[in-house]
Amino acid sequence: MLIVMNQGATDREIQAVVRRIERMGFKANPIPGARRCVIGITGNEGPLDPGEFESMPGVREAIRITRPYTLVGREGADGPTKISILGREVGGAALTIIAGPCAVETEEQAMRIAELVARAGASFYRGGAFKPRTSPYSFQGLGDEGLRILSKVREATGLPIVTEAVDPESVSRVEEVADVIQVGARNMQNYSLLKHAGRCGKPVLLKRGLSATIQELLLSAEYLLAEGNRQVILCERGIRSFDQATRNLFDLSAIAVVHGLSHLPIVADPSHGTGHRDMVIPMARAAVAAGADGLLVEVHPNPDRALSDGAQSLYPEQFDRMMKEVRLIAEAIGRRVAEPAGARA
Amino acid sequence: MLIVMNQGATDREIQAVVRRIERMGFKANPIPGARRCVIGITGNEGPLDPGEFESMPGVREAIRITRPYTLVGREGADGPTKISILGREVGGAALTIIAGPCAVETEEQAMRIAELVARAGASFYRGGAFKPRTSPYSFQGLGDEGLRILSKVREATGLPIVTEAVDPESVSRVEEVADVIQVGARNMQNYSLLKHAGRCGKPVLLKRGLSATIQELLLSAEYLLAEGNRQVILCERGIRSFDQATRNLFDLSAIAVVHGLSHLPIVADPSHGTGHRDMVIPMARAAVAAGADGLLVEVHPNPDRALSDGAQSLYPEQFDRMMKEVRLIAEAIGRRVAEPAGARA
Amino acid sequence: MLIVMNQGATDREIQAVVRRIERMGFKANPIPGARRCVIGITGNEGPLDPGEFESMPGVREAIRITRPYTLVGREGADGPTKISILGREVGGAALTIIAGPCAVETEEQAMRIAELVARAGASFYRGGAFKPRTSPYSFQGLGDEGLRILSKVREATGLPIVTEAVDPESVSRVEEVADVIQVGARNMQNYSLLKHAGRCGKPVLLKRGLSATIQELLLSAEYLLAEGNRQVILCERGIRSFDQATRNLFDLSAIAVVHGLSHLPIVADPSHGTGHRDMVIPMARAAVAAGADGLLVEVHPNPDRALSDGAQSLYPEQFDRMMKEVRLIAEAIGRRVAEPAGARA
Amino acid sequence: MLIVMNQGATDREIQAVVRRIERMGFKANPIPGARRCVIGITGNEGPLDPGEFESMPGVREAIRITRPYTLVGREGADGPTKISILGREVGGAALTIIAGPCAVETEEQAMRIAELVARAGASFYRGGAFKPRTSPYSFQGLGDEGLRILSKVREATGLPIVTEAVDPESVSRVEEVADVIQVGARNMQNYSLLKHAGRCGKPVLLKRGLSATIQELLLSAEYLLAEGNRQVILCERGIRSFDQATRNLFDLSAIAVVHGLSHLPIVADPSHGTGHRDMVIPMARAAVAAGADGLLVEVHPNPDRALSDGAQSLYPEQFDRMMKEVRLIAEAIGRRVAEPAGARA
Repeated sequence: MLIVMNQGATDREIQAVVRRIERMGFKANPIPGARRCVIGITGNEGPLDPGEFESMPGVREAIRITRPYTLVGREGADGPTKISILGREVGGAALTIIAGPCAVETEEQAMRIAELVARAGASFYRGGAFKPRTSPYSFQGLGDEGLRILSKVREATGLPIVTEAVDPESVSRVEEVADVIQVGARNMQNYSLLKHAGRCGKPVLLKRGLSATIQELLLSAEYLLAEGNRQVILCERGIRSFDQATRNLFDLSAIAVVHGLSHLPIVADPSHGTGHRDMVIPMARAAVAAGADGLLVEVHPNPDRALSDGAQSLYPEQFDRMMKEVRLIAEAIGRRVAEPAGARA
Repeated sequence: MLIVMNQGATDREIQAVVRRIERMGFKANPIPGARRCVIGITGNEGPLDPGEFESMPGVREAIRITRPYTLVGREGADGPTKISILGREVGGAALTIIAGPCAVETEEQAMRIAELVARAGASFYRGGAFKPRTSPYSFQGLGDEGLRILSKVREATGLPIVTEAVDPESVSRVEEVADVIQVGARNMQNYSLLKHAGRCGKPVLLKRGLSATIQELLLSAEYLLAEGNRQVILCERGIRSFDQATRNLFDLSAIAVVHGLSHLPIVADPSHGTGHRDMVIPMARAAVAAGADGLLVEVHPNPDRALSDGAQSLYPEQFDRMMKEVRLIAEAIGRRVAEPAGARA
Repeated sequence: MLIVMNQGATDREIQAVVRRIERMGFKANPIPGARRCVIGITGNEGPLDPGEFESMPGVREAIRITRPYTLVGREGADGPTKISILGREVGGAALTIIAGPCAVETEEQAMRIAELVARAGASFYRGGAFKPRTSPYSFQGLGDEGLRILSKVREATGLPIVTEAVDPESVSRVEEVADVIQVGARNMQNYSLLKHAGRCGKPVLLKRGLSATIQELLLSAEYLLAEGNRQVILCERGIRSFDQATRNLFDLSAIAVVHGLSHLPIVADPSHGTGHRDMVIPMARAAVAAGADGLLVEVHPNPDRALSDGAQSLYPEQFDRMMKEVRLIAEAIGRRVAEPAGARA
Repeated sequence: MLIVMNQGATDREIQAVVRRIERMGFKANPIPGARRCVIGITGNEGPLDPGEFESMPGVREAIRITRPYTLVGREGADGPTKISILGREVGGAALTIIAGPCAVETEEQAMRIAELVARAGASFYRGGAFKPRTSPYSFQGLGDEGLRILSKVREATGLPIVTEAVDPESVSRVEEVADVIQVGARNMQNYSLLKHAGRCGKPVLLKRGLSATIQELLLSAEYLLAEGNRQVILCERGIRSFDQATRNLFDLSAIAVVHGLSHLPIVADPSHGTGHRDMVIPMARAAVAAGADGLLVEVHPNPDRALSDGAQSLYPEQFDRMMKEVRLIAEAIGRRVAEPAGARA
């Protein structure tokens, strides 16, 4: 940490900072400048709190020079994390395509979509049994009945299941069925939920919050790793912006930033990222070209009758087309996407 | 709801929309225009989902014309809500001044601050026993020991206690001690927590999320009212912005907007709203001048040793000064602030 | 336009709105609903101003249902606009790769970069002679001397020149040398500049403002078209956001949104869009995958000695690599990028 | 400036940075830490460019420790700047109330409003002759005819005139009539305009751009001062945000931040800051309570017939009420507002 003093800071103020640093057991390194003095702190192991110094007389600013997370950081890590789930690897050369309806509505609906996406080459099935909704009057998911349907989907298709837990209590119920537990955007800083998810035995898909900085996303992932769960997949899903032309602002730069800072894999969700069905395919291509480790996409056979997020769900034939286009992009950058079932036959 | 058709929408597409509206049991009112057709829907009681129509061929947009909340809305309400808590009224002419440390650290610290703020005229004491923190390595509060200290504070000072519940499970523990349960900014859309808080018997202070629109704040309050809890106090505490000159962007317009849309009282938190001790007093004055029903302010005798949010905590003498200045502003707009204890003696 | 009345609006208030619409020469179509009345306006040719109605008693909101631009809109246009410049076509199947230094610094520097980018397959050369800079103390460009160097570059390489005009006065000077006149992000709403650029005979590259909505970008383009200049290329270059992890937030969704709303071509600038050299290549790939009609990229042989924007300029070998990767992405989506000069020989 | 090296930076990389600093004529102060090395630079007079270092191998970040402006900064200034205009002082104890229509429409309209606002105690008259408008089809002001009317207003009422220049060319025309030249929000970074305005002999009112940070606002002011014009009044008028509940997000914290960083006076514009007539009065009170040196408010006798910004213009009787309320707030904080003409008589 660096303590930047005010221009007119007195010797006494400088000495007070130095003493405080020394009392904390660290070394103070004052650098007197032409205009102001700066004091470097060395010898500390973990991060210090800027507030400790910023409130002292004569101090203008305290600047961190080590990042506030350690377990999720790329520095010191043994290469990118790869997570193996029912024989699929997340974070390797093959892209992880997670597809399904926003919400599980009926067994028939869930199963039909599962067959469609499996046939087109999806590697995971995602559907919500518990749905956090902005309005208390919106459909909030089938709950346990939804979980029962999801386990049938896995039985029938062999696809691993991704589904959301919305509170600490639901983690244990979801954990029984899910192969990956999703923590949604609104819950990215729900620390009780993170701690429970960090203690469960299943991989976690952590979505970036609507106004979370990338550093905050990584700090929320740090909660999971600090509890012992190292199987964490990050997900960019669009953030808040001033322009209402899209539902959210899909921040594809986040993929390159995360790859630069962390060893964790990151997938992208162009359905929530844009909110418009017609934009999902181009933005799915863009996400793969930007280096995303996979995609999370909503598909519905009758999107205009979907109980939630219909406007952003792909028609099945659009999902087929997306898979074809994304496969070409993946190959152009030396990665790959599983072939459609028909092709494999 | 109004359904705006594309310019080249066919009669067939228009008829499909009309039939769908009628199948839902409502009346369709097509208005053919020079350039495009618009269809008004009448006869519906509650809000409709735009997604239902936006995915139909030929439809450009579906526009809501009733707000998606009902219980928190000003329309139909019987004037502003006033909440009575241990003899103090929130939402009336007297401003509600809630003050205390960010976190309860020790009994001595908590008690000393309580005496200070009581003497200066605060009407509620607030301190955190459970603290949601961005980093898993930051101080997370004393937990149950913190609650124990808070109940001692009330005993000693008579001040009603405001403290935060961070998950459904903690609501019941907090409820035993708190006179007002705080739901923090990061938890504004933690719907499981809102449902539990909505079912408890205590008033709730609901803080606006970092990137929540005012409509989303009101919808989260609607969750509380929908569970039967009508004693809800809203709180503006700053939102995310592109400028890092302040910790958050304190949105004082929210006060006027909320007063225009809802019957619920709203207080303002200039400590989190700015993040800088030196800005708390001017922004506290501004909040009162804008019509806030009260203030939530952090005070600490040694802010530079505070375990959290030290940089934004007022020194006791600053809190005294703030109370004096705010009192004058309140009087200038026909409201009032309780006199300091000394004055009353 | 639709006029949404308040719930308790009186007949008298509704009639006042109706009369006002009729006085303007249009037809009023009241739709009485269960809860409130809505009045549709038909018969108007151009857009109306919501403010005209929103200030009338009993009116809650006036909602536009035709977009406020006409010349740039896709509706009614005869397919996407293609612009031919010195034998290169912008907006067709071939991508437009515009490359060069942020600022022209010396003839030697400008020429060396020109040879590099020409050899790698760039189709336009861009360099600034006039530089708008946030600080008055930063290097502001060589001015007329820069223009002279640019004309030498074109002579030597045959590449068309893109360079910026910063005020109405500089348009005429830039116009003499430039093949495309750039209007920078900070000037997107400099209407005097837009009017001058709209009247000049050269194509214009219009960069999106730092906090401009896509609709505002299109309205600024409308200024150019309204003056008679139909050769307009839009450019996404990143917008303001709350996260400082990147210099700007590169909004690739804007490409799909613009293609949906307008017939104008749009290119993407991953150099300003990210601000970090290491992110330029992945985001260039992503932009092409998203459907951008081209790229605008900064290249510098010694970026750490560049007089402006060094940190985001590619090294020449990085530019080569970018061209190779982008070529593969372009082919994957059925487009193409010119071959490097060596390959063509 | 402080250069923060990567964790694994080699000695060679550190030496390269040190040598570069020394070649620039400054002193390098390396501080080796447990985890990484930091190098402080001392001996430089003006600000350095972080990009100079951030592109060197082994460098993680270059952090400025002196602010990039000097003339507008509070450090070194001789107290707050007070500007005297036709006998009125801006920046002193008396608040500067600037009022008038958004645009000058007719002589009759302009004059009528002038009488109203003069009578209520306004100290300056503001009206636009040149109007920058988002759409090319909106009313763009009366131009020179507007200026002629404004000079008549001054003659009749004695109020100093504030009016906008929209490009370098209009500065000289506006300068002949105006007592204060306004540079609008969209032109805050129109540097050619700033340079012209900096060279003219009149005080300048500089409005904050829609997405300008406070530091950028101060740097734009620095352009004016660097040209020799020290009579600069800043103006907060709302910034872009994700919430559409208000037209802009009125950032009252900016007032306290500017007062902390700069010696220049700052006024607030609650009309543009909120966009809704009903919010102007509470936010005007809040701005004064926050410490604003004055207000800029739009008034129109028939706002619903205004040619621009009608929805945010106060009715004359609202302006009267605002003056009364603001007067009380000003007194509560030890400042004052001129009495209404009637009272003085």
